[in-house]
Amino acid sequence: VSDETRTERTLRTRTHARSNMKEVADLAGVALSSVSRVLSGHPDVSEPMRERVMQAVERLGYQPDLLAQSMRRRSTLSCGFVVGDISNPLLAEIAQGAEVTLRDAGYAMLLTNSENDPRLDASHVRLFLQRRVDCLLLSLAAETDRETLALLERIEEPIVVIDRDVPEEIGAGAVLSDHRTGMHAAVSHLLDLGHRRIGLVNGATLRAPRERRAGLEDAYRDRGLPADYRILEGPLTVDHGQRATAELLDGPEPPTAIVAGANQLLVGTLRELRRRNSRIGSDLSLVSCDTIVLTELFDPPIAVVDRDNRELGRQAAAMLLERMSKPDTPPERITLPTRFIARPSCAPPPPGA
Amino acid sequence: VSDETRTERTLRTRTHARSNMKEVADLAGVALSSVSRVLSGHPDVSEPMRERVMQAVERLGYQPDLLAQSMRRRSTLSCGFVVGDISNPLLAEIAQGAEVTLRDAGYAMLLTNSENDPRLDASHVRLFLQRRVDCLLLSLAAETDRETLALLERIEEPIVVIDRDVPEEIGAGAVLSDHRTGMHAAVSHLLDLGHRRIGLVNGATLRAPRERRAGLEDAYRDRGLPADYRILEGPLTVDHGQRATAELLDGPEPPTAIVAGANQLLVGTLRELRRRNSRIGSDLSLVSCDTIVLTELFDPPIAVVDRDNRELGRQAAAMLLERMSKPDTPPERITLPTRFIARPSCAPPPPGA
Repeated sequence: VSDETRTERTLRTRTHARSNMKEVADLAGVALSSVSRVLSGHPDVSEPMRERVMQAVERLGYQPDLLAQSMRRRSTLSCGFVVGDISNPLLAEIAQGAEVTLRDAGYAMLLTNSENDPRLDASHVRLFLQRRVDCLLLSLAAETDRETLALLERIEEPIVVIDRDVPEEIGAGAVLSDHRTGMHAAVSHLLDLGHRRIGLVNGATLRAPRERRAGLEDAYRDRGLPADYRILEGPLTVDHGQRATAELLDGPEPPTAIVAGANQLLVGTLRELRRRNSRIGSDLSLVSCDTIVLTELFDPPIAVVDRDNRELGRQAAAMLLERMSKPDTPPERITLPTRFIARPSCAPPPPGA
Repeated sequence: VSDETRTERTLRTRTHARSNMKEVADLAGVALSSVSRVLSGHPDVSEPMRERVMQAVERLGYQPDLLAQSMRRRSTLSCGFVVGDISNPLLAEIAQGAEVTLRDAGYAMLLTNSENDPRLDASHVRLFLQRRVDCLLLSLAAETDRETLALLERIEEPIVVIDRDVPEEIGAGAVLSDHRTGMHAAVSHLLDLGHRRIGLVNGATLRAPRERRAGLEDAYRDRGLPADYRILEGPLTVDHGQRATAELLDGPEPPTAIVAGANQLLVGTLRELRRRNSRIGSDLSLVSCDTIVLTELFDPPIAVVDRDNRELGRQAAAMLLERMSKPDTPPERITLPTRFIARPSCAPPPPGA
């Protein structure tokens, strides 16, 4: 119930917002340099001095200006995260884990979508460098783009890649998922059920699809079985998922089990199976990679190679913070587990198949 | 195939990375102030001067330092986005739309998760202000938190809220979804099919659940039907979805149709229906709000009140950019449409129900 107008209040607010270190120094009755030392956490500050300054800071509601501090420190306390597509639930969970960990350490997360376009990776890294981020988290659209790799090799800012293989010369840390072991377990389960012809609808050219392919091949080799599998590689799109599923099922010896190598591919596979009225868990067995609400709630529930995506984000952020505090240690690689969860979408192949 | 060691290269890179306006001025043979004028887009610059400077910029690979520019301009070309939970696909799509629009205009998006905790909203807004973001996009955890509202009223930075009602005094722009019309259409469809007892498993206290409730009430009132619906409000969690569904079905006159008022609630509802072996689309009709892959691919496909979340993010970012370019225009509110998509999860009530 104040009479002041909006303009008056705005003016007062503006003045208040601009309240500066000088005012803090005047109120505390100390030199400006003392305020600066207290606020920057300088060790040579007596406890009474610190208290006096902080009382003035609180009374004035003074907020230290991180931008001005950044200029002095040459650090912006920010991390740039290049993400293929934040609307992919997998990447959104990774971003969520990373953001909370970075924020706890005082870092802001800048986020940019490369729309899974390799040409945008380098330009987004450059944008972040112009903004002087202190470090980079990268879920690159491509692992072999020459421009991106040349840029990453040149820069000094600590880098951690998430589930990507990049050349050692870049000096990046890496947090990876052990797709190979999870896929090996999934395929072994299908082989145990009696399947011999398994189709893998896979991505291409990135680490995850390479490891998934290797896990499938290992499982056949470990049992001395002939390589009666088919692997169809392509982009991580619903469309590729649907086409590849159709191609597998229209082949001369169609598979009795299909593995969808990513959540986008699963959507395409399910569309195609519905179109054909295939009964999952009886006509055909199905496994997917990464848990989404669909895999649990589908009827029948869909077996998955599961992993903890938030943990992947947390570990990547933690590794980045560690690299910033100890810049001279060699880059680390850690691999987080995946696990296969069997569900009723997997059953023995139909008789005669 | 160079002999230089990693250290030598790092040193060279460091020198290179630090290449500054002084070097550009020296190479171009012009005054430092001329370089500064060219790079800041000052109008009083001759074309030959501009070309001379830009050639030196390119030869040195000089990248203008946005941080230093920010100090001069008092602008960081950044936007802070406070999101309840980025791992919610709905918010991830909104963030994706907003980020692309902001980036096209030269703005970086800083993102922070409030973990749907109202107490974190204000502290995250404060964090962003310390970082001197130019503007704020808010998907607040609560609309009535006094500390948050007092803070928002005080600040000058343009604000756009996404699907939230906040007091006019804050002067925020708003991009809203027309949940009411979509819900009215969904409930009218159920009434057309013969349902009279409809249960709404709803969120609480935010704009979206209020509008959804109103849409349902309108639909009954418009037909002069008695209010034989039940609305159970609670947090946007899987757990509330499951409990509320159980409570509805265990009541004396259980509903013949359920509307899940959010994607998290739908997961809880489906868990409970599976536990009871309810056949969706025959024993019970079901509608959800917002499209997720589950709604399309579930068997039977689930009817939804749909909206374009990426467009919501794009429009919110565009409104924010507009507010920054014209700070004196009054705040706008725009409402984007929702539409009901009928699917086989809705059918007439079973005979005798």
